[in-house]
Amino acid sequence: MPVGTAGTVKTVDSQDLETLGFQQVLANTYHLSLRPGADLVERFGGLHELMSWKGSILTDSGGYQVMSLSSMNEIDDDGVTFKSHLDGSRHRLTPERSIDIQTQLGVDIAMALDECPPFPCSRETAARAMERTHAWAPRNLSRRTEGGPAIFGIVQGGVHEDLRRESAAFLGELPFDGFAVGGVSVGEPTEMQYPVVKLAAPLLPADKARYLMGVGHPQDILHAVACGIDMFDCVLPTRMARHHVLYTLRGRVNAMNAQYAEMKSPIDPESAFPASTGRYSPAYLRHLLKAKEPTGARLMTLHNLAFYARMMEEIRAAITNGSWPELMARYANA
Amino acid sequence: MPVGTAGTVKTVDSQDLETLGFQQVLANTYHLSLRPGADLVERFGGLHELMSWKGSILTDSGGYQVMSLSSMNEIDDDGVTFKSHLDGSRHRLTPERSIDIQTQLGVDIAMALDECPPFPCSRETAARAMERTHAWAPRNLSRRTEGGPAIFGIVQGGVHEDLRRESAAFLGELPFDGFAVGGVSVGEPTEMQYPVVKLAAPLLPADKARYLMGVGHPQDILHAVACGIDMFDCVLPTRMARHHVLYTLRGRVNAMNAQYAEMKSPIDPESAFPASTGRYSPAYLRHLLKAKEPTGARLMTLHNLAFYARMMEEIRAAITNGSWPELMARYANA
Repeated sequence: MPVGTAGTVKTVDSQDLETLGFQQVLANTYHLSLRPGADLVERFGGLHELMSWKGSILTDSGGYQVMSLSSMNEIDDDGVTFKSHLDGSRHRLTPERSIDIQTQLGVDIAMALDECPPFPCSRETAARAMERTHAWAPRNLSRRTEGGPAIFGIVQGGVHEDLRRESAAFLGELPFDGFAVGGVSVGEPTEMQYPVVKLAAPLLPADKARYLMGVGHPQDILHAVACGIDMFDCVLPTRMARHHVLYTLRGRVNAMNAQYAEMKSPIDPESAFPASTGRYSPAYLRHLLKAKEPTGARLMTLHNLAFYARMMEEIRAAITNGSWPELMARYANA
Repeated sequence: MPVGTAGTVKTVDSQDLETLGFQQVLANTYHLSLRPGADLVERFGGLHELMSWKGSILTDSGGYQVMSLSSMNEIDDDGVTFKSHLDGSRHRLTPERSIDIQTQLGVDIAMALDECPPFPCSRETAARAMERTHAWAPRNLSRRTEGGPAIFGIVQGGVHEDLRRESAAFLGELPFDGFAVGGVSVGEPTEMQYPVVKLAAPLLPADKARYLMGVGHPQDILHAVACGIDMFDCVLPTRMARHHVLYTLRGRVNAMNAQYAEMKSPIDPESAFPASTGRYSPAYLRHLLKAKEPTGARLMTLHNLAFYARMMEEIRAAITNGSWPELMARYANA
């Protein structure tokens, strides 16, 4: 899933995402509930209607953004009180309220409100967050409605095997529609992320979707798929694009590099990007980036999204065809 | 012509311009000669190749930007010395050098370097600028090359009928491929612009293209076409888009207006914009603008460019069909 924080994936539109072949996007409950507001989105007919997006939409619970973006937040056993980063207004988020808002947004998959502890954290903090997450789980599910979104639970437990087992066992008994591995995300060093994914993924029920939130680089995704993960969201392809980084089969390259100043042929000849980006040379891209032209960020974003869309397609095909080793070899340097 | 200052029309790409039906774009010699540099563009195979643009390209002489953007400029009878607004480096622009640079850029139409006096200005200043423009005219033409760009002359004379007549008579005798009305541009009040256009346009040779530089709003263009002008460039559709203003048959509207917060139907039902913009509601556009999402500026730009592209198409059709009065009525409020 590309990340469309405010109901739009930065620099592209829903038509572009369709053309690129994406089936689902992530949007952020925190941002949308503050602007344009869940009531407005509901009256409008839901987020699909607002975005003109026919694919599927998953929203997060809002909890992560409340903890990381709001100017004040206080968590207690009932929920979180926070101030909007936009206007300082006071809001309250509880498990019930989170699911209600996501239901108002009319999305396909709602994430349960959990407590996501900082990473890394002590065993004691990880255990406390897990217990609160477990206490909140049935409260999230209590707001499930006929025709409303599917609800995914989030397994906590940090880097601790016994806690991960306990959390997966507890939540796996509840009637969630899918499960996420919580507490692993963007920017975490590989040597800390991989063992947790390897440990946590197989513990999730095998007959429901397994979702790794906020991951990752191509190698991270390949590793996680091999561990049994089915779904991902990540800001990397779009955020890195705005920082001049292109994903290619030969690795990440900085499109501002002087070696591209007069280059006509594609940066990565093994890549086959759609006509909308393939018609422009690395020299032109570099010129647009140097001139800070908005079209530069857009073309970079289209390139990276196309890279990820194709990679996920090839992952699905490799699982079906049994050609996983060939796929790993193909993406060895990506 | 949409304005593509740095070899790109802000927020859109060459594919978009093709889809919208534009045949020609304007690019700025001053900007391109500083970045990425005329030598690089020439080695790359020209600006068409760099932009991946199959249509026609017109460049200005660079003179206007030298006078308005550079951190220092000194004009003398031979040319202008100026400092780059990018890095303060010293450059020299002469009529010969301007045409040489535009030839290096590989464009289809090059504008002659002229002296464009401030507006409004005294009769004496207008006369002096006209005389220098006349002295430079043959020097511009001396750099014409086989296979190089067509060269357009620029008629000066300010608001003074006798000077305009003198300038048109003098330049009209020279073998330019087309002629522009200089000294009339964006932001000039209607009551000053219209009489000059009405006076100057019919004085230009009837058998060559007549170009009004930097104009304008829909009404300005309709007025100028009625006066005999054939070609326009203007930043208004793209710049106004970035300031939240949409052109419609009912006039200019601010897309941030609260009345559009929950609107689903098009802002202007008489307008038929392409699918790429027509699929998004005014409510979504407003949300994107409020959230300062880059896609907001892009969709606004596509809308306004589509409005102008269609207007120019309808102008051509009205001239051919003799349905000018109907066209004027249709755009009466635009």
